[in-house]
Amino acid sequence: MDNRPIGIFDSGVGGLTVTGRVLQVMPNEEIVYFGDTARVPYGSKGKETITRFSCQDVRFLLSKNVKAVIVACNTASSNSLEQLRESFDVPVFGTVIPGAAEAAKKTKNKKVGIIATAATVRSGAYEKEIKKADSQIEVYAKACPLFVPLAEEGWVDDEVTYLTAKRYIEPLLEKGVDTIILGCTHYPLLRGCIEKVAGENVTLIDPAYETALKVYDYLKERNMTRTLEESPEYKFYVSDTTDTFDRICSKALEKKYTAEEINIELF
Amino acid sequence: MDNRPIGIFDSGVGGLTVTGRVLQVMPNEEIVYFGDTARVPYGSKGKETITRFSCQDVRFLLSKNVKAVIVACNTASSNSLEQLRESFDVPVFGTVIPGAAEAAKKTKNKKVGIIATAATVRSGAYEKEIKKADSQIEVYAKACPLFVPLAEEGWVDDEVTYLTAKRYIEPLLEKGVDTIILGCTHYPLLRGCIEKVAGENVTLIDPAYETALKVYDYLKERNMTRTLEESPEYKFYVSDTTDTFDRICSKALEKKYTAEEINIELF
Repeated sequence: MDNRPIGIFDSGVGGLTVTGRVLQVMPNEEIVYFGDTARVPYGSKGKETITRFSCQDVRFLLSKNVKAVIVACNTASSNSLEQLRESFDVPVFGTVIPGAAEAAKKTKNKKVGIIATAATVRSGAYEKEIKKADSQIEVYAKACPLFVPLAEEGWVDDEVTYLTAKRYIEPLLEKGVDTIILGCTHYPLLRGCIEKVAGENVTLIDPAYETALKVYDYLKERNMTRTLEESPEYKFYVSDTTDTFDRICSKALEKKYTAEEINIELF
Repeated sequence: MDNRPIGIFDSGVGGLTVTGRVLQVMPNEEIVYFGDTARVPYGSKGKETITRFSCQDVRFLLSKNVKAVIVACNTASSNSLEQLRESFDVPVFGTVIPGAAEAAKKTKNKKVGIIATAATVRSGAYEKEIKKADSQIEVYAKACPLFVPLAEEGWVDDEVTYLTAKRYIEPLLEKGVDTIILGCTHYPLLRGCIEKVAGENVTLIDPAYETALKVYDYLKERNMTRTLEESPEYKFYVSDTTDTFDRICSKALEKKYTAEEINIELF
Protein backbone atom coordinates (compact mmCIF):
# COMPACT_ATOMS: atom_id res chain seq x y z
CA MET A 1 0.00 0.00 0.00
CA ASP A 2 0.93 3.64 -0.44
CA ASN A 3 -0.94 6.12 1.71
CA ARG A 4 0.47 9.25 0.08
CA PRO A 5 -1.99 11.54 -1.75
CA ILE A 6 -2.64 11.73 -5.49
CA GLY A 7 -1.59 15.07 -7.02
CA ILE A 8 -3.85 16.75 -9.55
CA PHE A 9 -3.12 19.96 -11.40
CA ASP A 10 -4.85 22.15 -13.91
CA SER A 11 -4.35 25.62 -15.38
CA GLY A 12 -7.18 26.75 -13.14
CA VAL A 13 -10.50 25.37 -12.02
CA GLY A 14 -11.47 23.11 -14.93
CA GLY A 15 -9.55 20.24 -13.35
CA LEU A 16 -12.08 20.19 -10.53
CA THR A 17 -14.42 18.28 -12.89
CA VAL A 18 -11.68 15.62 -13.17
CA THR A 19 -11.20 15.70 -9.41
CA GLY A 20 -14.91 14.97 -9.01
CA ARG A 21 -14.50 11.82 -11.11
CA VAL A 22 -11.38 10.77 -9.19
CA LEU A 23 -13.20 11.02 -5.87
CA GLN A 24 -16.06 9.00 -7.34
CA VAL A 25 -13.77 6.19 -8.56
CA MET A 26 -11.30 6.26 -5.63
CA PRO A 27 -13.20 7.53 -2.59
CA ASN A 28 -10.50 6.40 -0.16
CA GLU A 29 -7.61 8.31 -1.76
CA GLU A 30 -6.27 11.62 -0.51
CA ILE A 31 -5.95 14.45 -3.02
CA VAL A 32 -3.67 17.45 -3.38
CA TYR A 33 -5.05 19.78 -6.06
CA PHE A 34 -3.20 22.70 -7.60
CA GLY A 35 -4.95 25.23 -9.86
CA ASP A 36 -2.67 27.76 -11.59
CA THR A 37 -5.28 30.51 -11.37
CA ALA A 38 -2.65 33.28 -11.58
CA ARG A 39 -1.61 32.21 -15.08
CA VAL A 40 -4.86 30.67 -16.34
CA PRO A 41 -5.68 29.95 -19.16
CA TYR A 42 -3.00 27.73 -20.73
CA GLY A 43 -5.15 26.98 -23.79
CA SER A 44 -4.32 30.16 -25.68
CA LYS A 45 -0.57 29.88 -25.08
CA GLY A 46 2.43 28.27 -26.77
CA LYS A 47 3.85 24.78 -26.19
CA GLU A 48 7.05 25.94 -24.46
CA THR A 49 5.23 28.21 -22.05
CA ILE A 50 2.67 25.50 -21.25
CA THR A 51 5.47 22.99 -20.59
CA ARG A 52 7.44 25.41 -18.41
CA PHE A 53 4.33 26.13 -16.33
CA SER A 54 3.40 22.42 -16.12
CA CYS A 55 6.87 21.50 -14.82
CA GLN A 56 6.50 24.07 -12.06
CA ASP A 57 3.06 22.64 -11.23
CA VAL A 58 4.47 19.11 -10.89
CA ARG A 59 7.39 20.35 -8.77
CA PHE A 60 4.88 21.96 -6.42
CA LEU A 61 2.85 18.72 -6.16
CA LEU A 62 6.03 16.72 -5.51
CA SER A 63 6.81 19.08 -2.63
CA LYS A 64 3.54 17.76 -1.15
CA ASN A 65 4.81 14.17 -1.40
CA VAL A 66 2.32 12.82 -3.95
CA LYS A 67 2.53 9.23 -5.25
CA ALA A 68 1.15 10.01 -8.71
CA VAL A 69 0.23 13.07 -10.78
CA ILE A 70 -2.89 13.57 -12.87
CA VAL A 71 -2.62 16.29 -15.49
CA ALA A 72 -6.26 17.36 -15.26
CA CYS A 73 -5.85 19.81 -18.12
CA ASN A 74 -6.14 18.75 -21.73
CA THR A 75 -3.90 21.59 -22.88
CA ALA A 76 -1.05 20.47 -20.63
CA SER A 77 -1.74 16.77 -21.35
CA SER A 78 -1.56 17.30 -25.08
CA ASN A 79 1.44 19.63 -25.10
CA SER A 80 3.60 18.55 -22.18
CA LEU A 81 2.90 14.96 -21.06
CA GLU A 82 6.00 13.42 -22.64
CA GLN A 83 8.23 16.10 -21.19
CA LEU A 84 6.72 15.65 -17.72
CA ARG A 85 7.22 11.88 -17.87
CA GLU A 86 10.84 12.35 -18.88
CA SER A 87 11.56 15.00 -16.27
CA PHE A 88 10.02 13.51 -13.14
CA ASP A 89 10.35 10.25 -11.30
CA VAL A 90 6.63 9.87 -10.54
CA PRO A 91 3.86 8.26 -12.61
CA VAL A 92 2.12 11.01 -14.63
CA PHE A 93 -1.31 10.51 -16.19
CA GLY A 94 -2.94 12.74 -18.80
CA THR A 95 -6.50 12.94 -20.10
CA VAL A 96 -5.73 12.58 -23.80
CA ILE A 97 -4.82 8.88 -24.06
CA PRO A 98 -7.84 7.59 -22.09
CA GLY A 99 -10.18 10.03 -23.88
CA ALA A 100 -8.90 9.05 -27.32
CA ALA A 101 -9.18 5.32 -26.54
CA GLU A 102 -12.78 5.72 -25.38
CA ALA A 103 -13.74 7.71 -28.50
CA ALA A 104 -12.16 5.08 -30.76
CA LYS A 105 -14.22 2.44 -28.95
CA LYS A 106 -17.51 4.36 -29.15
CA THR A 107 -17.58 5.64 -32.73
CA LYS A 108 -19.55 3.49 -35.18
CA ASN A 109 -19.06 5.41 -38.41
CA LYS A 110 -15.38 6.08 -37.64
CA LYS A 111 -15.77 9.83 -37.61
CA VAL A 112 -14.73 11.54 -34.41
CA GLY A 113 -14.87 15.25 -33.52
CA ILE A 114 -12.75 16.99 -30.92
CA ILE A 115 -13.59 20.29 -29.29
CA ALA A 116 -10.78 21.79 -27.23
CA THR A 117 -8.59 24.83 -26.62
CA ALA A 118 -6.49 26.30 -29.43
CA ALA A 119 -3.30 24.80 -27.93
CA THR A 120 -4.80 21.31 -27.62
CA VAL A 121 -6.04 21.37 -31.22
CA ARG A 122 -2.70 22.70 -32.47
CA SER A 123 -0.81 19.90 -30.69
CA GLY A 124 -2.61 17.19 -32.70
CA ALA A 125 -2.31 14.90 -29.66
CA TYR A 126 -5.89 13.56 -29.69
CA GLU A 127 -5.70 12.86 -33.41
CA LYS A 128 -2.42 10.98 -32.97
CA GLU A 129 -3.79 8.80 -30.16
CA ILE A 130 -7.06 8.05 -31.96
CA LYS A 131 -5.15 7.03 -35.10
CA LYS A 132 -2.97 4.77 -32.94
CA ALA A 133 -6.11 2.99 -31.72
CA ASP A 134 -7.63 2.76 -35.21
CA SER A 135 -5.94 4.32 -38.21
CA GLN A 136 -9.22 4.21 -40.20
CA ILE A 137 -10.89 6.82 -38.01
CA GLU A 138 -11.29 10.29 -39.49
CA VAL A 139 -10.69 13.02 -36.93
CA TYR A 140 -11.99 16.61 -37.07
CA ALA A 141 -10.93 19.14 -34.46
CA LYS A 142 -12.32 22.56 -33.62
CA ALA A 143 -10.81 25.08 -31.22
CA CYS A 144 -13.45 26.75 -29.00
CA PRO A 145 -11.69 29.67 -27.22
CA LEU A 146 -14.92 31.16 -25.85
CA PHE A 147 -16.09 28.06 -23.99
CA VAL A 148 -13.75 28.49 -21.00
CA PRO A 149 -14.73 32.12 -20.33
CA LEU A 150 -18.42 31.24 -20.86
CA ALA A 151 -18.15 28.43 -18.30
CA GLU A 152 -16.31 30.69 -15.85
CA GLU A 153 -18.92 33.45 -16.36
CA GLY A 154 -21.52 30.84 -15.36
CA TRP A 155 -23.56 31.24 -18.58
CA VAL A 156 -24.06 27.50 -18.77
CA ASP A 157 -27.64 27.31 -19.99
CA ASP A 158 -27.81 30.43 -22.06
CA GLU A 159 -28.66 31.77 -25.51
CA VAL A 160 -25.19 33.26 -26.01
CA THR A 161 -23.55 29.95 -25.14
CA TYR A 162 -25.97 28.06 -27.37
CA LEU A 163 -25.20 30.33 -30.36
CA THR A 164 -21.47 30.02 -29.68
CA ALA A 165 -21.77 26.23 -29.45
CA LYS A 166 -23.63 26.19 -32.79
CA ARG A 167 -20.84 28.21 -34.40
CA TYR A 168 -18.16 25.85 -33.12
CA ILE A 169 -19.89 22.47 -33.41
CA GLU A 170 -21.93 22.67 -36.63
CA PRO A 171 -18.83 22.37 -38.85
CA LEU A 172 -18.08 19.05 -37.11
CA LEU A 173 -21.66 17.83 -37.58
CA GLU A 174 -21.40 18.69 -41.28
CA LYS A 175 -18.46 16.27 -41.45
CA GLY A 176 -20.77 13.57 -40.08
CA VAL A 177 -19.09 12.85 -36.74
CA ASP A 178 -21.03 10.48 -34.45
CA THR A 179 -18.75 11.04 -31.43
CA ILE A 180 -17.35 14.24 -29.94
CA ILE A 181 -14.63 14.42 -27.30
CA LEU A 182 -15.05 17.18 -24.71
CA GLY A 183 -11.35 17.92 -24.95
CA CYS A 184 -11.13 20.54 -22.19
CA THR A 185 -11.96 19.98 -18.55
CA HIS A 186 -14.22 23.05 -18.48
CA TYR A 187 -16.52 21.78 -21.19
CA PRO A 188 -18.53 19.30 -19.09
CA LEU A 189 -19.87 22.42 -17.32
CA LEU A 190 -21.45 23.45 -20.67
CA ARG A 191 -22.71 19.96 -21.48
CA GLY A 192 -26.36 21.10 -21.70
CA CYS A 193 -25.77 23.53 -24.57
CA ILE A 194 -23.30 21.24 -26.31
CA GLU A 195 -25.78 18.34 -26.21
CA LYS A 196 -28.57 20.54 -27.54
CA VAL A 197 -26.46 21.46 -30.59
CA ALA A 198 -24.93 18.00 -31.13
CA GLY A 199 -28.25 16.16 -30.91
CA GLU A 200 -29.01 12.77 -29.45
CA ASN A 201 -27.29 10.79 -32.21
CA VAL A 202 -23.87 12.08 -31.22
CA THR A 203 -22.04 10.49 -28.27
CA LEU A 204 -20.18 12.97 -26.06
CA ILE A 205 -17.00 11.65 -24.44
CA ASP A 206 -15.73 13.17 -21.18
CA PRO A 207 -12.15 11.89 -20.76
CA ALA A 208 -12.20 12.57 -16.99
CA TYR A 209 -13.94 9.35 -16.03
CA GLU A 210 -11.69 7.15 -18.19
CA THR A 211 -8.66 8.94 -16.77
CA ALA A 212 -9.78 8.24 -13.20
CA LEU A 213 -10.34 4.55 -14.04
CA LYS A 214 -6.89 4.29 -15.57
CA VAL A 215 -5.21 5.73 -12.49
CA TYR A 216 -7.20 3.39 -10.27
CA ASP A 217 -6.12 0.34 -12.31
CA TYR A 218 -2.51 1.46 -12.15
CA LEU A 219 -2.53 1.92 -8.38
CA LYS A 220 -4.40 -1.32 -7.74
CA GLU A 221 -2.11 -3.43 -9.93
CA ARG A 222 0.94 -2.10 -8.08
CA ASN A 223 -0.62 -2.35 -4.65
CA MET A 224 -0.37 1.42 -4.28
CA THR A 225 -3.88 2.25 -3.08
CA ARG A 226 -4.49 3.96 0.24
CA THR A 227 -5.54 1.50 2.95
CA LEU A 228 -5.98 3.75 5.99
CA GLU A 229 -9.48 3.71 7.40
CA GLU A 230 -9.79 7.31 8.56
CA SER A 231 -11.49 9.64 6.10
CA PRO A 232 -9.15 10.96 3.41
CA GLU A 233 -8.13 14.63 3.34
CA TYR A 234 -8.42 16.86 0.30
CA LYS A 235 -6.16 19.86 -0.04
CA PHE A 236 -6.57 22.62 -2.59
CA TYR A 237 -3.94 25.15 -3.63
CA VAL A 238 -4.18 27.99 -6.14
CA SER A 239 -1.71 30.59 -7.39
CA ASP A 240 -4.30 33.37 -7.15
CA THR A 241 -7.37 33.61 -4.96
CA THR A 242 -10.59 34.48 -6.77
CA ASP A 243 -14.29 33.82 -6.50
CA THR A 244 -14.31 31.55 -9.53
CA PHE A 245 -12.56 28.76 -7.63
CA ASP A 246 -15.29 28.68 -5.00
CA ARG A 247 -18.08 28.79 -7.58
CA ILE A 248 -16.74 26.01 -9.81
CA CYS A 249 -15.63 23.96 -6.80
CA SER A 250 -19.16 23.94 -5.36
CA LYS A 251 -20.52 22.99 -8.79
CA ALA A 252 -18.01 20.26 -9.66
CA LEU A 253 -17.49 18.69 -6.21
CA GLU A 254 -20.90 19.54 -4.71
CA LYS A 255 -19.10 20.87 -1.67
CA LYS A 256 -17.18 24.01 -0.81
CA TYR A 257 -13.47 23.78 -0.08
CA THR A 258 -11.10 26.58 0.78
CA ALA A 259 -7.96 26.84 -1.31
CA GLU A 260 -4.63 28.08 -0.01
CA GLU A 261 -2.66 30.53 -2.17
CA ILE A 262 0.96 29.81 -3.10
CA ASN A 263 3.49 31.53 -5.40
CA ILE A 264 4.03 29.01 -8.21
CA GLU A 265 6.89 31.02 -9.72
CA LEU A 266 9.09 29.90 -6.83
CA PHE A 267 8.89 26.24 -7.94
CA MET B 1 15.75 66.51 -24.38
CA ASP B 2 15.65 62.83 -23.52
CA ASN B 3 16.03 60.42 -26.40
CA ARG B 4 15.30 57.24 -24.44
CA PRO B 5 12.18 55.27 -25.40
CA ILE B 6 8.80 55.30 -23.68
CA GLY B 7 7.92 51.94 -22.08
CA ILE B 8 4.40 50.58 -22.44
CA PHE B 9 3.10 47.39 -20.88
CA ASP B 10 -0.14 45.44 -20.86
CA SER B 11 -1.30 42.03 -19.74
CA GLY B 12 -1.28 41.04 -23.39
CA VAL B 13 -2.25 42.66 -26.65
CA GLY B 14 -4.97 45.12 -25.59
CA GLY B 15 -2.31 47.74 -24.87
CA LEU B 16 -1.56 47.89 -28.57
CA THR B 17 -4.67 50.09 -28.95
CA VAL B 18 -3.06 52.52 -26.48
CA THR B 19 0.24 52.24 -28.35
CA GLY B 20 -1.59 53.28 -31.52
CA ARG B 21 -2.77 56.46 -29.78
CA VAL B 22 0.72 57.16 -28.39
CA LEU B 23 2.25 56.93 -31.86
CA GLN B 24 -0.45 59.27 -33.17
CA VAL B 25 0.18 61.91 -30.47
CA MET B 26 3.99 61.49 -30.27
CA PRO B 27 5.17 60.27 -33.68
CA ASN B 28 8.81 61.05 -32.92
CA GLU B 29 9.09 58.97 -29.73
CA GLU B 30 10.62 55.51 -29.56
CA ILE B 31 8.57 52.76 -27.94
CA VAL B 32 9.38 49.58 -26.02
CA TYR B 33 6.22 47.50 -25.62
CA PHE B 34 5.85 44.50 -23.35
CA GLY B 35 2.78 42.23 -23.49
CA ASP B 36 2.54 39.59 -20.76
CA THR B 37 0.94 37.07 -23.08
CA ALA B 38 2.10 34.09 -20.97
CA ARG B 39 0.01 35.21 -18.00
CA VAL B 40 -2.81 37.08 -19.76
CA PRO B 41 -5.48 37.98 -18.70
CA TYR B 42 -4.96 40.04 -15.53
CA GLY B 43 -8.61 41.10 -15.38
CA SER B 44 -9.89 37.93 -13.72
CA LYS B 45 -7.16 37.86 -11.08
CA GLY B 46 -6.59 39.27 -7.60
CA LYS B 47 -4.98 42.61 -6.65
CA GLU B 48 -1.79 41.11 -5.18
CA THR B 49 -1.14 38.91 -8.19
CA ILE B 50 -1.80 41.79 -10.59
CA THR B 51 0.60 44.02 -8.63
CA ARG B 52 3.33 41.36 -8.47
CA PHE B 53 3.08 40.82 -12.24
CA SER B 54 2.98 44.59 -12.94
CA CYS B 55 6.16 45.15 -10.90
CA GLN B 56 7.94 42.50 -12.99
CA ASP B 57 6.68 44.18 -16.16
CA VAL B 58 8.08 47.56 -15.07
CA ARG B 59 11.41 45.98 -14.07
CA PHE B 60 11.66 44.50 -17.56
CA LEU B 61 10.94 47.89 -19.20
CA LEU B 62 13.51 49.58 -16.96
CA SER B 63 16.07 47.05 -18.18
CA LYS B 64 15.43 48.58 -21.62
CA ASN B 65 16.28 52.05 -20.29
CA VAL B 66 12.88 53.71 -20.70
CA LYS B 67 12.28 57.32 -19.59
CA ALA B 68 8.61 56.81 -18.65
CA VAL B 69 6.16 53.93 -18.27
CA ILE B 70 2.59 53.80 -19.53
CA VAL B 71 0.42 51.17 -17.86
CA ALA B 72 -1.65 50.40 -20.96
CA CYS B 73 -3.90 48.06 -19.03
CA ASN B 74 -6.87 49.29 -17.05
CA THR B 75 -6.70 46.32 -14.69
CA ALA B 76 -3.10 47.09 -13.71
CA SER B 77 -3.78 50.86 -13.67
CA SER B 78 -6.70 50.47 -11.31
CA ASN B 79 -5.11 47.89 -9.01
CA SER B 80 -1.40 48.67 -8.98
CA LEU B 81 -0.63 52.25 -10.07
CA GLU B 82 0.09 53.59 -6.57
CA GLN B 83 2.35 50.67 -5.75
CA LEU B 84 4.25 51.10 -9.03
CA ARG B 85 4.75 54.81 -8.38
CA GLU B 86 6.06 54.07 -4.89
CA SER B 87 8.35 51.26 -6.01
CA PHE B 88 10.06 52.76 -9.05
CA ASP B 89 12.00 55.89 -9.74
CA VAL B 90 10.43 56.57 -13.15
CA PRO B 91 7.27 58.48 -14.07
CA VAL B 92 4.38 55.97 -14.35
CA PHE B 93 1.12 56.83 -16.15
CA GLY B 94 -2.11 54.86 -15.99
CA THR B 95 -5.28 55.03 -18.06
CA VAL B 96 -7.75 55.48 -15.22
CA ILE B 97 -7.11 59.08 -14.15
CA PRO B 98 -7.22 60.56 -17.70
CA GLY B 99 -10.25 58.41 -18.61
CA ALA B 100 -12.15 59.40 -15.49
CA ALA B 101 -11.38 63.11 -16.00
CA GLU B 102 -12.64 62.99 -19.59
CA ALA B 103 -15.86 61.20 -18.58
CA ALA B 104 -16.52 63.78 -15.84
CA LYS B 105 -16.07 66.51 -18.45
CA LYS B 106 -18.35 64.90 -21.06
CA THR B 107 -21.37 63.78 -19.01
CA LYS B 108 -24.30 66.19 -19.05
CA ASN B 109 -26.76 64.36 -16.80
CA LYS B 110 -24.01 63.36 -14.34
CA LYS B 111 -24.55 59.63 -14.83
CA VAL B 112 -21.49 57.71 -16.01
CA GLY B 113 -21.20 54.01 -16.82
CA ILE B 114 -17.99 51.97 -16.76
CA ILE B 115 -17.46 48.70 -18.56
CA ALA B 116 -14.28 46.88 -17.60
CA THR B 117 -12.74 43.64 -16.35
CA ALA B 118 -13.85 42.13 -13.05
CA ALA B 119 -10.64 43.27 -11.34
CA THR B 120 -10.99 46.87 -12.57
CA VAL B 121 -14.60 47.06 -11.41
CA ARG B 122 -13.73 45.49 -8.04
CA SER B 123 -10.95 48.05 -7.48
CA GLY B 124 -13.42 50.98 -7.60
CA ALA B 125 -10.60 53.10 -9.08
CA TYR B 126 -12.64 54.75 -11.86
CA GLU B 127 -15.43 55.58 -9.45
CA LYS B 128 -12.98 57.15 -7.00
CA GLU B 129 -11.36 59.32 -9.68
CA ILE B 130 -14.70 60.44 -11.18
CA LYS B 131 -15.99 61.40 -7.72
CA LYS B 132 -12.78 63.37 -7.16
CA ALA B 133 -13.51 65.36 -10.34
CA ASP B 134 -17.19 65.87 -9.43
CA SER B 135 -18.72 64.30 -6.36
CA GLN B 136 -22.24 64.77 -7.79
CA ILE B 137 -21.72 62.24 -10.56
CA GLU B 138 -23.42 58.87 -10.15
CA VAL B 139 -21.24 56.00 -11.33
CA TYR B 140 -22.43 52.55 -12.45
CA ALA B 141 -19.91 49.84 -13.28
CA LYS B 142 -20.36 46.51 -15.05
CA ALA B 143 -17.76 43.77 -15.39
CA CYS B 144 -17.69 42.25 -18.90
CA PRO B 145 -15.47 39.13 -18.68
CA LEU B 146 -16.42 37.87 -22.15
CA PHE B 147 -15.37 40.99 -24.06
CA VAL B 148 -11.62 40.22 -24.00
CA PRO B 149 -11.96 36.66 -25.35
CA LEU B 150 -14.51 37.87 -27.95
CA ALA B 151 -12.06 40.55 -29.14
CA GLU B 152 -9.21 38.04 -29.24
CA GLU B 153 -11.39 35.53 -31.13
CA GLY B 154 -11.92 38.30 -33.71
CA TRP B 155 -15.73 38.20 -33.40
CA VAL B 156 -15.87 41.98 -33.54
CA ASP B 157 -18.97 42.54 -35.67
CA ASP B 158 -20.96 39.52 -34.71
CA GLU B 159 -24.34 38.40 -33.38
CA VAL B 160 -22.82 36.65 -30.36
CA THR B 161 -20.86 39.78 -29.43
CA TYR B 162 -23.93 41.96 -29.95
CA LEU B 163 -26.05 39.77 -27.64
CA THR B 164 -23.27 39.71 -25.06
CA ALA B 165 -22.96 43.51 -25.26
CA LYS B 166 -26.72 43.85 -24.75
CA ARG B 167 -26.53 41.66 -21.66
CA TYR B 168 -23.72 43.72 -20.16
CA ILE B 169 -24.69 47.24 -21.23
CA GLU B 170 -28.50 47.36 -20.95
CA PRO B 171 -28.41 47.47 -17.12
CA LEU B 172 -26.28 50.64 -17.42
CA LEU B 173 -28.69 52.19 -19.94
CA GLU B 174 -31.56 51.44 -17.55
CA LYS B 175 -29.75 53.61 -14.99
CA GLY B 176 -29.80 56.45 -17.53
CA VAL B 177 -26.06 56.89 -18.15
CA ASP B 178 -25.20 59.33 -20.98
CA THR B 179 -21.47 58.46 -20.98
CA ILE B 180 -19.72 55.08 -20.89
CA ILE B 181 -16.00 54.55 -20.31
CA LEU B 182 -14.42 51.74 -22.32
CA GLY B 183 -12.46 50.70 -19.25
CA CYS B 184 -10.35 47.95 -20.83
CA THR B 185 -7.90 48.43 -23.67
CA HIS B 186 -9.43 45.56 -25.64
CA TYR B 187 -12.86 47.16 -25.80
CA PRO B 188 -12.16 49.70 -28.58
CA LEU B 189 -11.80 46.63 -30.84
CA LEU B 190 -15.51 45.87 -30.14
CA ARG B 191 -16.61 49.50 -30.51
CA GLY B 192 -19.04 48.68 -33.35
CA CYS B 193 -21.20 46.33 -31.27
CA ILE B 194 -20.94 48.48 -28.14
CA GLU B 195 -22.08 51.57 -30.06
CA LYS B 196 -25.00 49.67 -31.59
CA VAL B 197 -26.23 48.71 -28.12
CA ALA B 198 -25.47 52.03 -26.41
CA GLY B 199 -27.13 54.15 -29.12
CA GLU B 200 -26.13 57.55 -30.45
CA ASN B 201 -27.14 59.47 -27.32
CA VAL B 202 -24.44 57.84 -25.25
CA THR B 203 -20.85 59.15 -25.47
CA LEU B 204 -18.18 56.43 -25.42
CA ILE B 205 -14.89 57.39 -23.79
CA ASP B 206 -11.66 55.63 -24.79
CA PRO B 207 -9.08 56.59 -22.12
CA ALA B 208 -6.16 55.77 -24.44
CA TYR B 209 -6.16 59.09 -26.28
CA GLU B 210 -6.36 61.15 -23.07
CA THR B 211 -3.57 59.06 -21.59
CA ALA B 212 -1.32 59.71 -24.59
CA LEU B 213 -2.01 63.47 -24.37
CA LYS B 214 -1.16 63.49 -20.69
CA VAL B 215 2.18 61.77 -21.26
CA TYR B 216 2.96 64.20 -24.08
CA ASP B 217 2.24 67.22 -21.85
CA TYR B 218 4.42 65.78 -19.11
CA LEU B 219 7.40 65.18 -21.42
CA LYS B 220 7.05 68.53 -23.15
CA GLU B 221 6.86 70.52 -19.91
CA ARG B 222 10.02 68.86 -18.65
CA ASN B 223 11.88 69.11 -21.95
CA MET B 224 12.00 65.30 -22.14
CA THR B 225 10.79 64.73 -25.71
CA ARG B 226 12.95 62.96 -28.27
CA THR B 227 14.70 65.37 -30.61
CA LEU B 228 16.66 63.04 -32.89
CA GLU B 229 15.73 63.33 -36.53
CA GLU B 230 16.14 59.73 -37.63
CA SER B 231 12.95 57.65 -37.62
CA PRO B 232 12.09 56.24 -34.20
CA GLU B 233 12.32 52.51 -33.50
CA TYR B 234 9.53 50.45 -32.01
CA LYS B 235 10.36 47.27 -30.12
CA PHE B 236 7.84 44.67 -29.05
CA TYR B 237 8.37 41.97 -26.43
CA VAL B 238 5.98 39.27 -25.24
CA SER B 239 6.23 36.51 -22.62
CA ASP B 240 4.64 33.95 -24.96
CA THR B 241 4.55 33.88 -28.73
CA THR B 242 1.10 33.38 -30.25
CA ASP B 243 -0.83 34.32 -33.36
CA THR B 244 -3.06 36.73 -31.44
CA PHE B 245 -0.27 39.28 -31.09
CA ASP B 246 0.22 39.48 -34.84
CA ARG B 247 -3.51 39.70 -35.51
CA ILE B 248 -4.25 42.46 -32.98
CA CYS B 249 -1.03 44.28 -33.83
CA SER B 250 -1.98 44.54 -37.49
CA LYS B 251 -5.44 45.76 -36.50
CA ALA B 252 -4.40 48.29 -33.85
CA LEU B 253 -1.22 49.67 -35.44
CA GLU B 254 -2.13 49.06 -39.08
CA LYS B 255 1.25 47.45 -39.53
CA LYS B 256 2.81 44.13 -38.65
CA TYR B 257 5.63 44.01 -36.13
CA THR B 258 7.49 40.98 -34.85
CA ALA B 259 7.68 40.53 -31.10
CA GLU B 260 10.60 38.95 -29.28
CA GLU B 261 9.83 36.43 -26.53
CA ILE B 262 11.32 36.88 -23.03
CA ASN B 263 10.84 35.05 -19.71
CA ILE B 264 9.13 37.63 -17.49
CA GLU B 265 9.45 35.46 -14.38
CA LEU B 266 13.16 36.25 -14.30
CA PHE B 267 12.46 39.97 -13.64
